[in-house]
Amino acid sequence: MSEHHRVAIVGATGAVGNTLMSILEERAFPFASLKLLASHRSAGEILTFKDQPIMVEELTHNSFDGVNLVFSSAGSSISKEFIPTAIGKGCLVIDNTSAFRMDADTPLVVPEVNMDAAIRHNGLIANPNCSTIQMVVALKPIYDRVGIKRIVVSTYQSVSGKSGSAVLELVDQTTAALEGRPIEPDKFPHQMAFNVAFDWPFTDGGDSEEEMKMVNETRKILEDDTIAVSATTVRVPVFFAHSESINVETEDKLSADDARQLLSESPGIVVMDDPASRKYPLAVDVAGRDEVFVGRIREDRSIENGLNLWVVADNLRKGAALNAIQIAEMLDGISV
Amino acid sequence: MSEHHRVAIVGATGAVGNTLMSILEERAFPFASLKLLASHRSAGEILTFKDQPIMVEELTHNSFDGVNLVFSSAGSSISKEFIPTAIGKGCLVIDNTSAFRMDADTPLVVPEVNMDAAIRHNGLIANPNCSTIQMVVALKPIYDRVGIKRIVVSTYQSVSGKSGSAVLELVDQTTAALEGRPIEPDKFPHQMAFNVAFDWPFTDGGDSEEEMKMVNETRKILEDDTIAVSATTVRVPVFFAHSESINVETEDKLSADDARQLLSESPGIVVMDDPASRKYPLAVDVAGRDEVFVGRIREDRSIENGLNLWVVADNLRKGAALNAIQIAEMLDGISV
Repeated sequence: MSEHHRVAIVGATGAVGNTLMSILEERAFPFASLKLLASHRSAGEILTFKDQPIMVEELTHNSFDGVNLVFSSAGSSISKEFIPTAIGKGCLVIDNTSAFRMDADTPLVVPEVNMDAAIRHNGLIANPNCSTIQMVVALKPIYDRVGIKRIVVSTYQSVSGKSGSAVLELVDQTTAALEGRPIEPDKFPHQMAFNVAFDWPFTDGGDSEEEMKMVNETRKILEDDTIAVSATTVRVPVFFAHSESINVETEDKLSADDARQLLSESPGIVVMDDPASRKYPLAVDVAGRDEVFVGRIREDRSIENGLNLWVVADNLRKGAALNAIQIAEMLDGISV
Repeated sequence: MSEHHRVAIVGATGAVGNTLMSILEERAFPFASLKLLASHRSAGEILTFKDQPIMVEELTHNSFDGVNLVFSSAGSSISKEFIPTAIGKGCLVIDNTSAFRMDADTPLVVPEVNMDAAIRHNGLIANPNCSTIQMVVALKPIYDRVGIKRIVVSTYQSVSGKSGSAVLELVDQTTAALEGRPIEPDKFPHQMAFNVAFDWPFTDGGDSEEEMKMVNETRKILEDDTIAVSATTVRVPVFFAHSESINVETEDKLSADDARQLLSESPGIVVMDDPASRKYPLAVDVAGRDEVFVGRIREDRSIENGLNLWVVADNLRKGAALNAIQIAEMLDGISV
């Protein structure tokens, strides 16, 4: 393993940054040094890693001196400004923002799905959108077995996908609602407590940017532009873990039983599917877990070759931080 | 109008019963007498109608003496036991349970969609499932204009569709979660606070009964067994109003603009669709409203003729009590 990693986390004080640190610690990710970077506003904060205090430093173009592995999750504009510098200084960057995901020469990687693409990197590997990651983990084995013509997905996304302060705002909004006080949305465009809502911004076609990410990233990761995807992405008042109702039309027939068997043997997936015994993945149970959970596997009799799946994963872990760390770990394994 | 109505409400103390009374009052529904019926347990409770106290009576087979119009919403087994008696005594029964919905000689009616079916009743008209009502109101104009091949729907259903006590339990569960106390589900099979979950029971095929209602009732109401429907019904921590993500494949092309125009001219529908100005229907805004709200109308480019719609309605009003009262009102109008 690579004790030679000199790691920097850009956006260390954010929700994904915090989760990155937790997972690096849990997995005993091997590294020689760890630098925590954030905006001027957060510089000077003290975070704890393995019981040791580490001071957060302000991100500048000099921050990458002495660093060779960067996890970036401070937003798209920060990635656009600083990642070229980090690459120029010889770092491998794993970027969790949307900045470079659709660039032709940037691999967009989910280790269970297309690790081969990661090997062809030029210093930068993009981590896909959280909603896309869990969907492609669940669909890749089906794609390989019987092909996929079309996906119709509706999401039930937790607020932690927005930010750590969105989690706190849901607490505040909920308390206000229960106490009959007025709700004043701040991080959300609308009331989020006891409501379901949409995220900004929208494209000219009426799709949200999040919806178009699911369409475009799925095709890029599966390396198949013929896959038709229709996505409706919805925010629900859940703190952690995204749930997805996925309807998939396959090229050839796959029974629900065969799909259950196939997925249970596939990497990174836990099948939890026995509705009669109340077994199906639920957000509150999946929060904090590493795998992608699949249940409610049903043949869709409305088309010749159709399946319905209910797919739940922790959006901060597999949907963001964990996926990024798995990429680094697997590249290590390959380069050894 | 029919001042001759002698009305009984079966299940008066439940969530739908309460809403029936509110709407009868709001709309100045004309009647000569009002009898409130419930189980032995609730008999003796005093409810208020137009500022007058009315005592709840115990439902027995003699309850329908002197009654000619019954709104029934006390559950399927109660309907099965008592509705034949009410019909035998010459009542017109509008039943909000699933007891007789799929019986061949019982009309299943949404006034905006198939009022013609109501006229052929034999003493009993069934009110469809809440999730089905709002979907068929939104889809009927599209069906008439361009035909419908297939519907893929995922729901975001409020807890009030379960019962009034489920609403209180969501308050209790949410308070417990915020205070860090353990959550003990009672009306729900799972934690409902800050979670999304499924309702019991399930069929052998893995679909929930609620999902099969959406499939079968949609076909019956639209009188077209060729319509393919795939439904995933999900409960969300919202108090009032159901939201639905509906993907529809039409026979012929209908642009999003034409769909918007068509639906805005259709009965019982409010189109609220300008995402760039943050205009789309949200559950908290639609709660307490009578119409079916449609937004996020998008051409689905994943198939030749496809549309995505976001459809929201108050499940206790249009999804239950209001629809039943509209049936009675329209039958009056027809018989005059």
